Amino acid sequence: MKRPSRRRIDLASGGEFDRIRAILGDAWGGDGRKDGLPSVGPGDDAAVLGDWVFSTDLTVEDVHFRRRWIGLEALGHRAVQVALSDVGAMGAEPVAVLVSLALPESGLEVARALGEGVRRAASQAGAFLAGGDLSRSPGPMIIDVVALGRTDDPVLRSTAAPGEDLWITGTLGGASGAVATWEEGGTPNEALRARFERPDPPLHLLRELRREGQVGAGIDVSDGLLADAGHLAAASGLGVRVEEGRVPIDPHLVGFDPQRRLELALTGGEDYQLLFTASRRARDVLEARAEGPVALQRIGAVVKGAGVVRVAPDGTERPGDSGGFDHFEANTP
Amino acid sequence: MKRPSRRRIDLASGGEFDRIRAILGDAWGGDGRKDGLPSVGPGDDAAVLGDWVFSTDLTVEDVHFRRRWIGLEALGHRAVQVALSDVGAMGAEPVAVLVSLALPESGLEVARALGEGVRRAASQAGAFLAGGDLSRSPGPMIIDVVALGRTDDPVLRSTAAPGEDLWITGTLGGASGAVATWEEGGTPNEALRARFERPDPPLHLLRELRREGQVGAGIDVSDGLLADAGHLAAASGLGVRVEEGRVPIDPHLVGFDPQRRLELALTGGEDYQLLFTASRRARDVLEARAEGPVALQRIGAVVKGAGVVRVAPDGTERPGDSGGFDHFEANTP
Repeated sequence: MKRPSRRRIDLASGGEFDRIRAILGDAWGGDGRKDGLPSVGPGDDAAVLGDWVFSTDLTVEDVHFRRRWIGLEALGHRAVQVALSDVGAMGAEPVAVLVSLALPESGLEVARALGEGVRRAASQAGAFLAGGDLSRSPGPMIIDVVALGRTDDPVLRSTAAPGEDLWITGTLGGASGAVATWEEGGTPNEALRARFERPDPPLHLLRELRREGQVGAGIDVSDGLLADAGHLAAASGLGVRVEEGRVPIDPHLVGFDPQRRLELALTGGEDYQLLFTASRRARDVLEARAEGPVALQRIGAVVKGAGVVRVAPDGTERPGDSGGFDHFEANTP
Repeated sequence: MKRPSRRRIDLASGGEFDRIRAILGDAWGGDGRKDGLPSVGPGDDAAVLGDWVFSTDLTVEDVHFRRRWIGLEALGHRAVQVALSDVGAMGAEPVAVLVSLALPESGLEVARALGEGVRRAASQAGAFLAGGDLSRSPGPMIIDVVALGRTDDPVLRSTAAPGEDLWITGTLGGASGAVATWEEGGTPNEALRARFERPDPPLHLLRELRREGQVGAGIDVSDGLLADAGHLAAASGLGVRVEEGRVPIDPHLVGFDPQRRLELALTGGEDYQLLFTASRRARDVLEARAEGPVALQRIGAVVKGAGVVRVAPDGTERPGDSGGFDHFEANTP
């Protein structure tokens, strides 16, 4: 769960990603195989152990949100949705969440309101609240959500193939547009605020598409479209091209000039939509599906090479994977 | 993971426990059954899903530790041991950990040192580091560890039977003795400091005992012996008697008077030893085992009734389950 930076930072394959890899070190070699369990180590949206996937997402006050932006129940709901988006990105069925809370203030009311949102989000996803931990915090409110899902055929970041199309769900830029408005002293319109408050990744889409054989690789868009496209490309040892003119910019981003709208959609993060690859043969089926309740848009392609290239409507190309959020180098919100 | 309070607070069945239950609410009724998976909901040391158990433990700077008490590598090691103690208390085999870090300072060195301790603890337990999340913190350092284990026969808190003996591993009071010394401006001796720095629950004991049919119920001692005995008693709908004269007080608690040593052992918490029940028929086997590398001591019995009674060497009885740590009402360390 990240918030956008207004400084542009060279993330290359992702600042957070690189740091976590550094923390995790080489000891496990990115592959946590144990006792013959098929497993995927650190580096994907979630860890895989047998037919289970596990992901953990921190939400930290004054890093990922400010209190005045969002109510407590909505915050609990959001923290769970954000964690479940990793499960959805793996094409897994949401099963359970564990929620750890570090709360600066006492009071069951705070815990109850957060818990209500947590429960509602879990329940909507068909998952349940399986446990957690609780502590006082001498500083910010912190919510850590572990999401558990099941699949016998996980969608990884690393399995894109050259020539595949790149697809995105929903629209982009709305959540980061709300954050930018708040940070600039304004008040976002209700639609933008709702994008921040209630991320709504289509949690079951990639599971269905994988079953139908129509998805190559997938990732959720938390750091920003270009940054996460870069993560997918790096994990697959390939490059991606993103056609700017095809990117589904949130229609509620009024009050921003066209260039800013595009940048929010490309680099803002926070949207928790799903980015995936599919073969060209799946194009007709996916375009028909895009008429349904889950918006789908083809926005580019996987190519041989490395990194992300953004392609302007006039055909101009430039490197696209510098942008998105760096947890340490970004300013405090 | 808790630290002891020097104020005595009525925890009844446990302040943290009650609050988490309140947060979790009645919606899941304490039973997260889903899709026919046998499962145990909130309220035990870990959640159970199929043959997996999951537990999450927060370690918060200035709530659970101070920087000057413990180095970063030791802190990472400790956070994992504390989380794994819940897995051990369920009689499960440690498999993996996920580690979320919220760090007040930048710098890979901090993350690397913590990660080194995390990896070492996981590796010693036969588990691996499967992933995590990383964020900046505008306040305290926070480490949230999710521990995963496997068992097809979990040891619960709720399955004690009247007439069973109550057993404890290791010694008690050392870790909280170190904390008390620091908090009173002193410097604990090396042995006490090591008790705080390197909790060492016998992670495989309850699994072995369960396989041999020699354990009824179990819990790890994080809040304090009397408080956690109270949790076990409440979950089982029974009472427990703790014989003060049998409690294995840490021999390194020098510089405390005898009464204080006893209180630290009974209510100090932080020890992460395992408390379990076993039938009287198992007494000989367990006493023989107590000669081995894992210290075991019979300290009381499970009885019909409710709550905890502490029994002094002279036979005096008094209620024993007020004591231990309350995360909100306790003073900041």
